[in-house]
Amino acid sequence: MQIDILTLFPDMFSGVTGSSIIKKAIEKELVQVQVTDFRAYAEGKHQVVDDYPYGGGAGMLLKAQPLFDAVEAVKQAEKQPRVILMDPAGRPFNQALAEEFAEEEQLIFICGHYEGYDERIRTSLVTDEVSIGDYILTGGEIGAMAMMDSVIRLLPGALGNQESAVTDSFSTGLLEHPHYTRPSEFRGMKVPDVLLSGNHAKIAEWRHEESLKRTFQRRPDLLESYPLTEKDRALISDWQKEGAHDDPLE
Amino acid sequence: MQIDILTLFPDMFSGVTGSSIIKKAIEKELVQVQVTDFRAYAEGKHQVVDDYPYGGGAGMLLKAQPLFDAVEAVKQAEKQPRVILMDPAGRPFNQALAEEFAEEEQLIFICGHYEGYDERIRTSLVTDEVSIGDYILTGGEIGAMAMMDSVIRLLPGALGNQESAVTDSFSTGLLEHPHYTRPSEFRGMKVPDVLLSGNHAKIAEWRHEESLKRTFQRRPDLLESYPLTEKDRALISDWQKEGAHDDPLE
Repeated sequence: MQIDILTLFPDMFSGVTGSSIIKKAIEKELVQVQVTDFRAYAEGKHQVVDDYPYGGGAGMLLKAQPLFDAVEAVKQAEKQPRVILMDPAGRPFNQALAEEFAEEEQLIFICGHYEGYDERIRTSLVTDEVSIGDYILTGGEIGAMAMMDSVIRLLPGALGNQESAVTDSFSTGLLEHPHYTRPSEFRGMKVPDVLLSGNHAKIAEWRHEESLKRTFQRRPDLLESYPLTEKDRALISDWQKEGAHDDPLE
Repeated sequence: MQIDILTLFPDMFSGVTGSSIIKKAIEKELVQVQVTDFRAYAEGKHQVVDDYPYGGGAGMLLKAQPLFDAVEAVKQAEKQPRVILMDPAGRPFNQALAEEFAEEEQLIFICGHYEGYDERIRTSLVTDEVSIGDYILTGGEIGAMAMMDSVIRLLPGALGNQESAVTDSFSTGLLEHPHYTRPSEFRGMKVPDVLLSGNHAKIAEWRHEESLKRTFQRRPDLLESYPLTEKDRALISDWQKEGAHDDPLE
């Protein structure tokens, strides 16, 4: 996979591309990441990338020309790249979209900063407008890092066995049960006896019930698509009667 | 404000703390950002930070001791810091939570990487479990960057006038209308005539209708809390009849 990032702040990416999964994936040649300062594509002596809005108003807008030319320069047409713009009004980024992006051969992320965009960028250059969440960021750079990380870790071979084990445990359809490691007592807080018992059937039962309980408390919507057993339903019914909200988040 | 980040990958933050709004806010002394490698707090010659889960299973867990000691070392008790853990099962991070965090005197972000957490960290060390979105990231670092950016830009004095103008236009309760800047024709794509007309009343009307239309198409939920005029209602009624879905996202 080829990932291109178009930004006015290329230095922001050095920490992320130089560490961790992304660095390893680059070293394994699973992905090539190229960060391009699109100011280099701006016409004219002063390489201006932004200008005032037609019709008046505060704020500056990114001009069409530098971004059209930068996308054309990095685009590998035979790969039919997705050209992605971060926008709070865009489609919410989620795991399904990460999986969709992970199938592509080239992703091009356009990162604006402070400014708005000339509308022609949105209508004629970009294929996807995406929001990483309902909060306002200063620019698109951190959003691009988040998407890049979530996509790259889905590429076959990107994760070692150890890394994939914990994070993939979501795939049960329930939230994770509590985990404990040594020591068995830390500052007076003890590990539940069952986990020290060596009784694997009991441990599996405890974990399932804790997963179910946490899901009931925090994300009951997930239970609608989970195949509950008779016993699960009886537990949930008990918790509903108790008003069992002892979870620290509640 | 004091922001502390506890991570095993401190280098990941260099790009973000050295650029843009965050760098400026540090220079203006609006915020102090300290990135700490919590491995330095791990007891024992080998400074082990993770261990196997009790009860068996794949994956490693972050031990309680290094993180408890690291939080205690950076915590300024009189500031009653929030201790924040990124967790996909946590409370969704949104603009309201960013505003809440921006009122605090100290934020401590705990960033895990690959591993799960010993439950005692969640129950007895952390004050907030937060999710930045419904996607899986390799670690908490990029989530911490996103939260840090969205919080810091809310600190009084962090944004210059130019930077705040565009991004704050959300506050109308509608999505933004299209923006255009020079040239008036780019690759055959023209700026709408009204924006070149100099008629400010017509421009304001056009912008309002475009905002309304985009909101109707992409985020109709926002209209429920927006004070619609009679004319707005008539427009929406027309669009409903037309099935006016010419938006590129639809």
